[in-house]
Amino acid sequence: MSSELVNIKKIKNAYNRISKYVHKTPVFTSSAADKMTGRKCFFKAENLQKTGSFKVRGALNAILALKEKNPNVSGVVTHSSGNHGQAVAWATSVAGFPCSVVVPEYAPEVKKTAIRGYGAELAECGSLPTDRNVVCDKISTEKGYVIIPPYDHEDVIAGQGTVALELLDQVPDLDAILVSVSGGGLSSGIAIAAKAIKPNIKIFLVEPEGKHMEKCLREGKRLWSDPPKYLDTIADGIRLEQPGQLTFPILTQLVEKEVFSLNNDEMIEGMKFAFQRMKLVIEAAAGAAVAAILSDKMKKMDPSLKHVAVILCGGNIDIDHLPWY
Amino acid sequence: MSSELVNIKKIKNAYNRISKYVHKTPVFTSSAADKMTGRKCFFKAENLQKTGSFKVRGALNAILALKEKNPNVSGVVTHSSGNHGQAVAWATSVAGFPCSVVVPEYAPEVKKTAIRGYGAELAECGSLPTDRNVVCDKISTEKGYVIIPPYDHEDVIAGQGTVALELLDQVPDLDAILVSVSGGGLSSGIAIAAKAIKPNIKIFLVEPEGKHMEKCLREGKRLWSDPPKYLDTIADGIRLEQPGQLTFPILTQLVEKEVFSLNNDEMIEGMKFAFQRMKLVIEAAAGAAVAAILSDKMKKMDPSLKHVAVILCGGNIDIDHLPWY
Repeated sequence: MSSELVNIKKIKNAYNRISKYVHKTPVFTSSAADKMTGRKCFFKAENLQKTGSFKVRGALNAILALKEKNPNVSGVVTHSSGNHGQAVAWATSVAGFPCSVVVPEYAPEVKKTAIRGYGAELAECGSLPTDRNVVCDKISTEKGYVIIPPYDHEDVIAGQGTVALELLDQVPDLDAILVSVSGGGLSSGIAIAAKAIKPNIKIFLVEPEGKHMEKCLREGKRLWSDPPKYLDTIADGIRLEQPGQLTFPILTQLVEKEVFSLNNDEMIEGMKFAFQRMKLVIEAAAGAAVAAILSDKMKKMDPSLKHVAVILCGGNIDIDHLPWY
Repeated sequence: MSSELVNIKKIKNAYNRISKYVHKTPVFTSSAADKMTGRKCFFKAENLQKTGSFKVRGALNAILALKEKNPNVSGVVTHSSGNHGQAVAWATSVAGFPCSVVVPEYAPEVKKTAIRGYGAELAECGSLPTDRNVVCDKISTEKGYVIIPPYDHEDVIAGQGTVALELLDQVPDLDAILVSVSGGGLSSGIAIAAKAIKPNIKIFLVEPEGKHMEKCLREGKRLWSDPPKYLDTIADGIRLEQPGQLTFPILTQLVEKEVFSLNNDEMIEGMKFAFQRMKLVIEAAAGAAVAAILSDKMKKMDPSLKHVAVILCGGNIDIDHLPWY
């Protein structure tokens, strides 16, 4: 079922739409990581992507697909002060659409400035998760703007899946991919693309402690209680407790049941490894994935997983407030 | 004269020797930098090079050339607790030579560990610049080890020149290159290679305030007073006041007389730009070059310099003690 909503053909179409605007990000290796893990490690550097995260792939695909279907759409709106907000703002500047981004009034000024820098209009809202939806819906209704959700949207998932298309072109003999999960847009897109290209590849999720994905995947059920909560983690890119209604069934079907759960200290160690050894600035959500591949849990995994990739999903952190200071 | 000591042929030979061991480092662009400068900016990421700096190019070329001439050499020795020390230690592990690195006893443990990690033997010395030479000479005499100097050596200069070979292959239509100068190995190698390939290209030096390269270049004279001093700068990679006896004449002949002089605050701004906007960890010596291209001085330069490259010479900093904290 899920594979009909988004499939490899849609992901390839997405790549045709977006590839001339987004970076084909490099894949780095690290002899230090290879030595520590006893495997060959590959790091897909989406932190070097436009706007500093993979999010532009899904946002741009959704917006260009929208433009194909309806060239006269009056604009788009989304709510996010984080990577998705910047990505939508950037993508609309590419597509030539007006754009509103709803952000909580307490959002850091630097993030508001970045969103405005791409030409988007800011709409402030209160601090409750539900406030955002109210303001977003209001703008959509009043201005006729189309809402671009952060993950639960087939064109967004297809866009994020292009990370795996590229990665498997760059490193065809991969045995596994480790990817951080929040709403599940990136991980489900990657799972669909990678499994279609290479059915035996294994996709492992990486999460902040407290998300309990492993239990939900094993039981094939959403065991979270509503209303949706934020996790208590330094990784603001992956602090959603619950994946989406579209993405969770895809994950249940395609990814490994075994999940890497990381705490703040471990994420910081992952970030520091990337900074110090690889000279790459990554955010905590990506630090989690690095920590996962360097973890004891990984050491105990099937030794036939020889070539393992980690998605460095983003690099948007405030360098004046690094979490280890 | 200088162009006979090292020429483009020697630099191409160096590239043939080292290219299968070192990274062909990527060249990054930044739309933020382009907007700020009104030019197209290119960033050659030698911070992503093996051991975290360009220094491996010169060290490996010198050591492999030595091995060609004398396969039975008993080992090599150098003195440096910094990037050159790590580079020589790494290069000897590639070449299969024993290696001693002389470091001052006060050098940070992390640097000593890195050097030992490449299999080199550490020899500690006192804190005066002259102490290092004494210990280095002693080891050379006692063990028959060949001294690999950090910059004043034709094979080292030729190795560093391969940065420009690669860069002009990656970005053929460059108009200028900005490069930080300390002993002058990198800058003289780049000047020889770039000017041979593209005689009209302009090479600009970047220095910490107080080095007074511009005056010396304009007068064509070494105006520094002996003994050699260290500059008071956060950029430990470029704190030598005086360039070398071999490199200075090359620079006098080939680089622009106009020099970019940066203070600590400006270097920090350059570092922060790379961290925040480009997601790259760079050391202060590279931050100086980034600050130079973003400077008011650059803004006033000839507008026909449309495509300008900056060498990100290294990324070896202690991330627990970043200079803006």
